[in-house]
Amino acid sequence: MTRSELIAQIRLKKSFLCIGLDTDIEKIPSHLIQYEDPVFEFNKDIINATKDLCVAYKINTAFYESRGVQGWESMKRTLDYIPADIFTIADAKRGDIGNTSAMYARAFFDKSSSGFEFDGLTVNPYMGEDSVTPFLQYENKWVILLALTSNKGSEDFQHRKEDGKSLYVDVIRTSKAWGNAGNLMYVIGATHPDLIREIRNFIPDHFLLIPGIGSQGGDLKKVVENGMNKDCGLLVNISRNIIYAGKGEGFTDDARAAAMEYQSEMVNYLQAII
Amino acid sequence: MTRSELIAQIRLKKSFLCIGLDTDIEKIPSHLIQYEDPVFEFNKDIINATKDLCVAYKINTAFYESRGVQGWESMKRTLDYIPADIFTIADAKRGDIGNTSAMYARAFFDKSSSGFEFDGLTVNPYMGEDSVTPFLQYENKWVILLALTSNKGSEDFQHRKEDGKSLYVDVIRTSKAWGNAGNLMYVIGATHPDLIREIRNFIPDHFLLIPGIGSQGGDLKKVVENGMNKDCGLLVNISRNIIYAGKGEGFTDDARAAAMEYQSEMVNYLQAII
Repeated sequence: MTRSELIAQIRLKKSFLCIGLDTDIEKIPSHLIQYEDPVFEFNKDIINATKDLCVAYKINTAFYESRGVQGWESMKRTLDYIPADIFTIADAKRGDIGNTSAMYARAFFDKSSSGFEFDGLTVNPYMGEDSVTPFLQYENKWVILLALTSNKGSEDFQHRKEDGKSLYVDVIRTSKAWGNAGNLMYVIGATHPDLIREIRNFIPDHFLLIPGIGSQGGDLKKVVENGMNKDCGLLVNISRNIIYAGKGEGFTDDARAAAMEYQSEMVNYLQAII
Repeated sequence: MTRSELIAQIRLKKSFLCIGLDTDIEKIPSHLIQYEDPVFEFNKDIINATKDLCVAYKINTAFYESRGVQGWESMKRTLDYIPADIFTIADAKRGDIGNTSAMYARAFFDKSSSGFEFDGLTVNPYMGEDSVTPFLQYENKWVILLALTSNKGSEDFQHRKEDGKSLYVDVIRTSKAWGNAGNLMYVIGATHPDLIREIRNFIPDHFLLIPGIGSQGGDLKKVVENGMNKDCGLLVNISRNIIYAGKGEGFTDDARAAAMEYQSEMVNYLQAII
């Protein structure tokens, strides 16, 4: 998906919501267990209940890999089921030496090789330029680079300073030359709203993928005030607070209601730019 | 596998060779393509030809994921085929927020969940403590943490200094408190032999997994001079220079000859400690 197509979807749906399909077979309603692929059935129901309210789905690969080959099959069925006008993210946090990253790029971007074709992939910057650039060779595909994550461990290394400049700042400033605002986004945790404003000073145009709202305690209003740009420039991810909003047979109604609550709030924030 | 079992294998086989199964279906001998799972057939033949010469096999997950569900099946068959007395590494470079890393731990360490049970997993430190510790909850399993990698991109961020101390040094000094020499190793590229000696000053006992010899230009003798400890403390990985040593039907003889060349050199280096 191109940048302008993504922005058009945000305007059309009045939403910059990304729903995280962190689907844990131990947490889904019990009536789904009878199906051959309960994880896919759950995802299908969640997608049907929310697809008009969000512009992206994010598949957290760990939850699928925890079930091995079977989990990868559920992931494929899920990706195939997502409508083409919705941006798809493999939240896989990959990255390795060049020839290996090229293989990961095939895994997530090249349907003829792997059967999977996501729009974007989260990538870890630790190994530097040649670990990231192989993913940028694919037209209309996106690297979503970890910069400042939402977890407590983000304090361990991401804030280390060289000449007064934090590592996450250096990651953004260095990596932005490897791509452009049409193929590179950054992961910035909602748990650091004050820092989102600083980041906007040196990447005014890039999209930010924002985790950490909901279960992790981030605040949507603060994220918008500090991070929204003229094209919106935000994809705000919610996982558990939407997909596990309900427990029983009516779980899709609860998931829809939760998604609508976020999307309704987003309508207000988007009024200034649409 | 425990630390003492690993050391016993090194003494028994007079080897600290790890063979990397970076198996690319486009690079394997053409006579294997007729099989239902050519990648597994290739790996099986390589394992049969080299299993007495190495103490570890490292499966580079990217090469398997590039073929999607089918690739994960080849990875499972390969892991199941490796003899129990050989240390197995998933070179997957995972790491995410705590609840997600716990899922990756199931993927690679919990056979009852995923069908996979490796001895060790490479983990990326960028997201800090809570992204690493879930992997350390498994008995006799190992985190192999990226510290100083072998690629050019290692210069981009890993050498950034805070108070004169490089990021990779900080990663090692900080993370060593999260585990111990019995469940934590570090990835240190052979392309930095001078720095291996410095690293030994603050982790005298930990095993180091050393990539970068062979195709990437590192030198085995220098690695040993700078990095070997009283228990050996090294696993030296070779991938392409062994598995692709031969091209045709006799590829296993060529792979064995290449592995034997490395192992023979290792016999000399091990004489001081066995």
